[in-house]
Amino acid sequence: MEAGEIRLNKVTREWVIYAPSRRKRPQDFQKINRAKQSLESLERKCPFCPGNEHMSDAIVLEMPNRQQNFWQTRVVPNKFPALTPDAHTHRSTEGIYIAMGGYGRHDVIVESPEHDQDIATMSKEDVEIVIETYHRRYIDVMLVHENMMAIIFRNHGERAGASLKHPHSQIIVTGVVPQHRRYREEQAQHYFDVWGRCVYCDILEFERNNHRRVIEENQSFLAFIPFAAEVPFEIWIMPKNHQADFGSISDQEKSDFTLILKNVLTNLYEKLNDPDYNYVINTAARYKAEEPQVHWYCQIHPRLTTQAGFELGAGISINPSLPELDADFLNA
Amino acid sequence: MEAGEIRLNKVTREWVIYAPSRRKRPQDFQKINRAKQSLESLERKCPFCPGNEHMSDAIVLEMPNRQQNFWQTRVVPNKFPALTPDAHTHRSTEGIYIAMGGYGRHDVIVESPEHDQDIATMSKEDVEIVIETYHRRYIDVMLVHENMMAIIFRNHGERAGASLKHPHSQIIVTGVVPQHRRYREEQAQHYFDVWGRCVYCDILEFERNNHRRVIEENQSFLAFIPFAAEVPFEIWIMPKNHQADFGSISDQEKSDFTLILKNVLTNLYEKLNDPDYNYVINTAARYKAEEPQVHWYCQIHPRLTTQAGFELGAGISINPSLPELDADFLNA
Repeated sequence: MEAGEIRLNKVTREWVIYAPSRRKRPQDFQKINRAKQSLESLERKCPFCPGNEHMSDAIVLEMPNRQQNFWQTRVVPNKFPALTPDAHTHRSTEGIYIAMGGYGRHDVIVESPEHDQDIATMSKEDVEIVIETYHRRYIDVMLVHENMMAIIFRNHGERAGASLKHPHSQIIVTGVVPQHRRYREEQAQHYFDVWGRCVYCDILEFERNNHRRVIEENQSFLAFIPFAAEVPFEIWIMPKNHQADFGSISDQEKSDFTLILKNVLTNLYEKLNDPDYNYVINTAARYKAEEPQVHWYCQIHPRLTTQAGFELGAGISINPSLPELDADFLNA
Repeated sequence: MEAGEIRLNKVTREWVIYAPSRRKRPQDFQKINRAKQSLESLERKCPFCPGNEHMSDAIVLEMPNRQQNFWQTRVVPNKFPALTPDAHTHRSTEGIYIAMGGYGRHDVIVESPEHDQDIATMSKEDVEIVIETYHRRYIDVMLVHENMMAIIFRNHGERAGASLKHPHSQIIVTGVVPQHRRYREEQAQHYFDVWGRCVYCDILEFERNNHRRVIEENQSFLAFIPFAAEVPFEIWIMPKNHQADFGSISDQEKSDFTLILKNVLTNLYEKLNDPDYNYVINTAARYKAEEPQVHWYCQIHPRLTTQAGFELGAGISINPSLPELDADFLNA
């Protein structure tokens, strides 16, 4: 099989992944713009439904349901992995450029045996098993020394890039620290060196006291619209105690995270008519797991607007809403 | 009228624009995901067609056609400006956060009186008037001392964020240097301090000699797929002589830029069946207009893929094509 490759953008220092298993032929792009198939039509046979378990290459992790009589969640390798563990992390040069092998890992987390469920509609107990699966898989992949970063994310709906309807999340593990993440950690470090505090803890404290943009709070977590939300209804769910690494989450915190995530997503589902969204767990890169200035959080990014040429050139978002109005609407 | 506001994201140092004229009500987002109107149905009365000139607030610049008997291009204020010149650049604080007034400018460049034309299908002579309009407007806005940055961009098609079909570009002027731009200038400066050369000049020289990813070349410009293209068929059009600022373009270069831009867009139009795309002219921020390490270029970003949760969390793109294959396909 052709090996995957990651190439470094020389002017932004961001990597770009070229995965053979995900490659389309140039001719395929002729049609892409015109006739987009609906998610339903692509799924005559859902690979994640009970009875089709053989369609997955191997089973990485399986968690039973509460009755202990069937699986509730399954972690399987992505059929079209962006990165693979058999590739290398060795850097090579092509003239002035730098590239490396497509090292990493790409798993799918099947969240339920039921095709038509979703986190917004699942029971609290079932969502808790999803979060437990996230945590176990995260801990497992971070045991491998070469893994620098593990990104747990969820794409819900076509506008969010989902290609299957069956409820699922994904975890991509990289052998590099993305510049995107390094930059945020550097900014937090500058802040810490000046103020002696975690910038995320300060944001959390301000939002909690100010309360203008808070959506939900429980013992361990705060959910709020950030002051400079990039898109309408962007929401951050943040542990109230300082915690750099998602891997450090306690059992009580897992239960509280489940509850707040489910409530927030159910609120969005009901008030905005099941919007497409991405969410991602932003957490520490390897070696930053104990740092006093890094703070993990779950970032929910509804896909209600389209980023266009100005965002591409300026990196500045134009948000056609206002965080305070979004908060009022969700709290009504 | 309610004043616009720009807020600083405390963890990325990127600004986010909240413009009252573009604001939707929270309820409006309930429907957005469901029933997207086609561009055609939104345009019973096109504000940019001849006869409807009164629909624009004021005329900023108008260029005649070659026969000198009608207008060919018009620059008018955007009806729903992201930024406005009557706002202030004064920074204010809200607790731990920083915000400023929505200062800037947002114009539309109507590229032709003909509703159904496009740069890919217009005559070379007509496109030349578009580029001349870009240049004159750019020079004009950069005469104002408060204007830090002018971004000329074009959104083509719904997936690229276009809301009107009539051929047009836009120019947004900001009173801040976006962190996105500052970062790129800093990277180029590091490179210059080490190698004594402009990184863009080095990329250009390498691509021109290697020739593997070149799409088109003329006396003044090279068009190529970048080594680490983020999306399929991303194309950079770069002046071959070092030039930091788009404002410095000569008459000969304007003519050569017209030709290469039109050829590249016509190629995409024909080979990929009129794909949606954004393009943006990446150019120097104020005070960087003469710098030896800053190099302007036009970046074309076809919208054939969807950025999802992994890109949101890692800043790493997964490109389902390969730059060399894209180049082969466009050169076939």
